[in-house]
Amino acid sequence: MRRHTLGKLLQHVHVNGPLSRAALAERMGVNRSTILALTSQLAAAGLVREEPPTDTTGAGRPSFIVLPQSQRVYVLAFDVAVDRLVAARVGLGGPVLDRRETPRTRAGVDLDTVVGNLAALGEELLAAAPPGAVCVGIGASYCGMIRPGDGMVRYGPEMGWVDQAFGAELERALGIGLPVAVGNEAHMGALAEAARGAGTGSQNLIYLHGDVGVGGGVLVGGKLLGGDGGYGCEVGHMVVNPVDGRPCLCGSQGCLEAETGEHALLEAAGRADGRTGRQAVRAVVDDAAAGDPAASAAVARIGDWLGIGVANLINLFNPGVVIFGGMLRDVYQVAEPQVASRIKRHAMPVSRDRARLRLSGLADDATLIGAADLGFAALIADPLRSS
Amino acid sequence: MRRHTLGKLLQHVHVNGPLSRAALAERMGVNRSTILALTSQLAAAGLVREEPPTDTTGAGRPSFIVLPQSQRVYVLAFDVAVDRLVAARVGLGGPVLDRRETPRTRAGVDLDTVVGNLAALGEELLAAAPPGAVCVGIGASYCGMIRPGDGMVRYGPEMGWVDQAFGAELERALGIGLPVAVGNEAHMGALAEAARGAGTGSQNLIYLHGDVGVGGGVLVGGKLLGGDGGYGCEVGHMVVNPVDGRPCLCGSQGCLEAETGEHALLEAAGRADGRTGRQAVRAVVDDAAAGDPAASAAVARIGDWLGIGVANLINLFNPGVVIFGGMLRDVYQVAEPQVASRIKRHAMPVSRDRARLRLSGLADDATLIGAADLGFAALIADPLRSS
Repeated sequence: MRRHTLGKLLQHVHVNGPLSRAALAERMGVNRSTILALTSQLAAAGLVREEPPTDTTGAGRPSFIVLPQSQRVYVLAFDVAVDRLVAARVGLGGPVLDRRETPRTRAGVDLDTVVGNLAALGEELLAAAPPGAVCVGIGASYCGMIRPGDGMVRYGPEMGWVDQAFGAELERALGIGLPVAVGNEAHMGALAEAARGAGTGSQNLIYLHGDVGVGGGVLVGGKLLGGDGGYGCEVGHMVVNPVDGRPCLCGSQGCLEAETGEHALLEAAGRADGRTGRQAVRAVVDDAAAGDPAASAAVARIGDWLGIGVANLINLFNPGVVIFGGMLRDVYQVAEPQVASRIKRHAMPVSRDRARLRLSGLADDATLIGAADLGFAALIADPLRSS
Repeated sequence: MRRHTLGKLLQHVHVNGPLSRAALAERMGVNRSTILALTSQLAAAGLVREEPPTDTTGAGRPSFIVLPQSQRVYVLAFDVAVDRLVAARVGLGGPVLDRRETPRTRAGVDLDTVVGNLAALGEELLAAAPPGAVCVGIGASYCGMIRPGDGMVRYGPEMGWVDQAFGAELERALGIGLPVAVGNEAHMGALAEAARGAGTGSQNLIYLHGDVGVGGGVLVGGKLLGGDGGYGCEVGHMVVNPVDGRPCLCGSQGCLEAETGEHALLEAAGRADGRTGRQAVRAVVDDAAAGDPAASAAVARIGDWLGIGVANLINLFNPGVVIFGGMLRDVYQVAEPQVASRIKRHAMPVSRDRARLRLSGLADDATLIGAADLGFAALIADPLRSS
């Protein structure tokens, strides 16, 4: 019980940043003396610190501020996207303290290479950490379907992975005695946007993540939709164009990913110059914004399919907010008219009136921050066990 | 607390039927003397009765059986489908005690006519109830989008209803001092199938209901997916054929409902003889089963689109079970090969391997039984208040 309450307090400070004891007491529904007892324990464990109030002008007794020990307590967070590997030290409270990024060459998409590269980045980060700082967990987000519990990649079509023991291998390669918690990149993005980004306050949220493919994370009643095995939310493989749709890497045809992903955009724009990846996508989007006809037509085409997909999701989930992340963040900024038009045409009025459309608030860090939160989960479940 | 525990016990008996005190103690995680105290109170209120055990051969002390007072305690349940109105007295524990059904003529789809007809059926049922029987609630299922709380029909395209105060009007017309709880028909079907039908034991369930249109009810983690306003699960308006799809009553095009509903089937089968409704659908299905080429082609076409829709739902929800109800129960029995083929082609292997496909276990009563459970909800929340 005490452990649960300590964790709840730490979670408040982790997600919301500095909070006064009074604010914590109100949010947790307990009195100030309980808060004092809890913060003392967390402070003694080096997880939070307290500062005298700066604002003493208000009515009533000024209340001490409780802050996360962001420099001292951190996790390693990894983000495996189709065209880049990111590793970071992320502090309690969410700040990115240090960061390494490397493009993932097409030559090295096998498990050993990816794990080796990530472990090397992780070791650099650990070596660069200041004395006294403590790594309390490891989280990773991956662009594929992840088995809950052990971080097995069941299916990652962009990298050709089927049943690869990614979590276990990364844990072994890092060898620092901490487990690696792995989640799907778009699931992680959804949770991060709900906690700190464009979806705060919403219990029913859809996060769409454009990498090379398209992933989705859906919160229903405040919880990530897992389904029976944890493999739900495969928004990118919703078929929207079954009759003459583009072939999809998954073997199907006309999937939302096939119609709105990077390849579809570049091909529609006639960019056969071999450039791929995020820079190539941004170039098309920028050209469209500048009025280039071919780029504009390509973005409009992708926006049209994206709008059909979003309309379907609005009908199915009646969300409060739909968030565009990753490459779709760039695309949506130019394709907004097509998306809006399709939603108007295909989504039920009572549901569409309620759905706000938003750009990712954490931008390219959404999936990384989600992975970091996964790494912090064990500490927050039981704050006095680790650290 | 006591109220909550009483309700929990009553819910067990309501959903599972007769249970021994020992079984109740085990399911509720309390000891037998607590069960005895609870059942005494429920028995004194006339909600359950107890019978001596019939099987005394087992080891240990034989345990009394607790049964719902199904003949004494009942609700009025209404089911408003596109082509029929059903009213029933449903007893605690779920049995349909008495039932009236009337076709709804196209001439009378306005609110006043529908409410008047339902109220007349309800009065007949009340008048025919045996002396001493007590009506404890009223529930109704409706083929459209319902505002939670007050039973307002926000949108019922098949009947041309927008913002019609159905729940309030039916309550007024019945005038027996009980509120009318209203839910969407497919939502009600999903809950009923989960409690007593083909979905028992599954926390992640999809129920597809074919009326004239197609509705859906989705359980995520054991709870009905409501979304931000209670308008989620609009499976029938998921666009599957946006390019050259059939127009839909909702104003969109290529909705799952437009491609798989009654009109699509009858038209594909070349049945332009004016016959519509469930009998006409069954005639096509029967002819297809008997080898009639036009009927077979029509069922195959509908099965193809249905399979695309189900594949999408498997990718999005990773369900444990998908249930075909209403007119889709008939269609699926013949169209199963097409549905299976589309699922194989479009659904992710890790999700599709897990999804069992089932016919509705409650058949044409699924939505009615769901409505009855809605009517029982207030009693189960606080068993000693009413009755």
